[in-house]
Amino acid sequence: MIYLDNAATTLLSPEALKAMSPFLKKKFGNPSSLHGLGREARAAIEKARERAAKFLNCSTEEVFFTGSATEADNLAIFGSAASHIITSVIEHPAVLEPIKNLEKSGEISATYLPVYKDGIVRVEDVKKALQPETALVSIMYANNEIGTIQPIAEIRKVLPAKIIFHTDAVQAANYLDCDVQKLGVDMLTLSSHKLYGPKGIGLLYIKKGAAIAPVMFGGHQEGGIRPGTENVAAIAGFGAAIAELAISKSQNIKIRVQRLRDKLIDDILTKIPGASLNGSLGARLPNNANISFDRVEGESILMALDQEGIAVSTGSACASGSLAPSYVLMALGMTHQRAHGSIRFSLSKYTTEAEINYVLKILPKVIERLRKLSPLK
Amino acid sequence: MIYLDNAATTLLSPEALKAMSPFLKKKFGNPSSLHGLGREARAAIEKARERAAKFLNCSTEEVFFTGSATEADNLAIFGSAASHIITSVIEHPAVLEPIKNLEKSGEISATYLPVYKDGIVRVEDVKKALQPETALVSIMYANNEIGTIQPIAEIRKVLPAKIIFHTDAVQAANYLDCDVQKLGVDMLTLSSHKLYGPKGIGLLYIKKGAAIAPVMFGGHQEGGIRPGTENVAAIAGFGAAIAELAISKSQNIKIRVQRLRDKLIDDILTKIPGASLNGSLGARLPNNANISFDRVEGESILMALDQEGIAVSTGSACASGSLAPSYVLMALGMTHQRAHGSIRFSLSKYTTEAEINYVLKILPKVIERLRKLSPLK
Repeated sequence: MIYLDNAATTLLSPEALKAMSPFLKKKFGNPSSLHGLGREARAAIEKARERAAKFLNCSTEEVFFTGSATEADNLAIFGSAASHIITSVIEHPAVLEPIKNLEKSGEISATYLPVYKDGIVRVEDVKKALQPETALVSIMYANNEIGTIQPIAEIRKVLPAKIIFHTDAVQAANYLDCDVQKLGVDMLTLSSHKLYGPKGIGLLYIKKGAAIAPVMFGGHQEGGIRPGTENVAAIAGFGAAIAELAISKSQNIKIRVQRLRDKLIDDILTKIPGASLNGSLGARLPNNANISFDRVEGESILMALDQEGIAVSTGSACASGSLAPSYVLMALGMTHQRAHGSIRFSLSKYTTEAEINYVLKILPKVIERLRKLSPLK
Repeated sequence: MIYLDNAATTLLSPEALKAMSPFLKKKFGNPSSLHGLGREARAAIEKARERAAKFLNCSTEEVFFTGSATEADNLAIFGSAASHIITSVIEHPAVLEPIKNLEKSGEISATYLPVYKDGIVRVEDVKKALQPETALVSIMYANNEIGTIQPIAEIRKVLPAKIIFHTDAVQAANYLDCDVQKLGVDMLTLSSHKLYGPKGIGLLYIKKGAAIAPVMFGGHQEGGIRPGTENVAAIAGFGAAIAELAISKSQNIKIRVQRLRDKLIDDILTKIPGASLNGSLGARLPNNANISFDRVEGESILMALDQEGIAVSTGSACASGSLAPSYVLMALGMTHQRAHGSIRFSLSKYTTEAEINYVLKILPKVIERLRKLSPLK
């Protein structure tokens, strides 16, 4: 199978699985237990925390493991006592929905910034949206559907110091610098299973001094910010995956992935009539290609490619099953029809040239066949 | 190592690990993805849900997987729009802390029922505590420190039908009937890693029609009640562990564990002076022994046993690191000193007679030695 749906989830790397393995077998202690088995589990968590802190260039006391990136995003939003929040229209539902929920309950007001045709938030728009009571700004580092990269460090520069700045870096982590000092963020979300780690574990970086209240209550784990027995194996695997990022972010891998992605885009746009790229090409993750095909349903393309052993996505996996067109694509100002005819190809460090060649061989035939069947003219 | 800390966490069973394994390797799809790899992951989740529904005697639409039992308990408490809550003083912190939090914010009032010397809630006390605005009752099925079993089905009988009744069955699941129809509960919490499944996964049974609001927001997963990419491997492992429960709950295993536990209690109480059992012996999980030793610190016993390769606990792992005496033991009306001198032994289906014999050989010497060093007279 050719897997080009890495924005939905990634293969667990052999190194991450190896790091998990002992904690799925003999080293099964509860990290809160005081005996040797418990201390061993505790040490594994702290090792992973050190790896994450090194990657983020922060201290270990600023790293909080959560059960998912969705949970980390929810904690970031609900944990801040904000009266006005600035965000963008293309945030992940894990950021948008908590904000909409607070707004609906009347607890806050929110400004949703546009992203224009290129899918990029304007720093000027952030500046203009600032209000005296703005307490939280949450702008994603890179988008999950179209891969566009937001100017995080530049946005920080126009924000008063008292404003808490959160970024969901779930899609960015594989390819972009996540040094929180350089980015100037107060909170940052990572997801393990998007960076070749296991599912069921995420983290929230919280800058020391930022007053974030917990959302859940129970035991004393994770400094009281996230109670519940720690998922030791998943945390160990997450830590190992993060440690590998330094390698996968090396220029070689980044260049190789981008070269394959560029080839995919160029060949599709050249060979298939009525195909167009969605969002900026320049400010874009090197592994993302989101392309609309005239007069075809994205879901039909997905299913036809699936039968040929190629896994892709229409929009976000988090919104699949929905008949509404992608809100991210609609935010770029396109028609319903174009949004419905879009496919997201997301590559990984494991993607090969042979795989891309195979897709480029199959895809034109699939599109041609589907267009013949299509009622859309 | 002799592991008698199974109330803190259990060994992942080989069967559960086997069920997880494909989803940690080639079958790594996101269940929300529409392609084959995604559908395969989705099927694994639904298989686990069927296993859980069978165990609980409910429908699959009533089973919601969460990132932990703590999360399930938080969802049960925060998700109910209650104005008055009845609970007990010995609930797990994952139930107590959310209630205290709501109480502190002025949103609700709460009644904390006593448990007396035997550690058991009285049905009469529940009845007396009822108020017209009581909307939620949360009483644990069995306690995590002293193993006492609460009369869940009897409590249900005195509750008006409109009251939502939740039970944390985390400790009970291995040995007690969790048929939600027989228990008459509207919500029930299970933890995977307490029943030989993996960490990082729990579930909340929510009776159809009970109006429970989500606590976190994001994607559409778990019927909108619990967003975030599902932890497929953990859910598959949890499902396999639940399917095994039918076997581990068979009379044979239950009788064997109880016989070993009774031998442990009897021999300790007979051979070691100043030792006493905490909580009821009759209404008690068959694998729990919580014993106080006069004139010794529990933590010193724990450390000394650890050096002999025996893993036990003082009170709950969730409260370890705290210098305060166990609130559960204090609720039984004992002195600080006796509470501080207590040790929890919790057996599993893997515990052998040879292990119990070894503990009975080592423990008297440990207690004797520590008492010689103790300043307490």
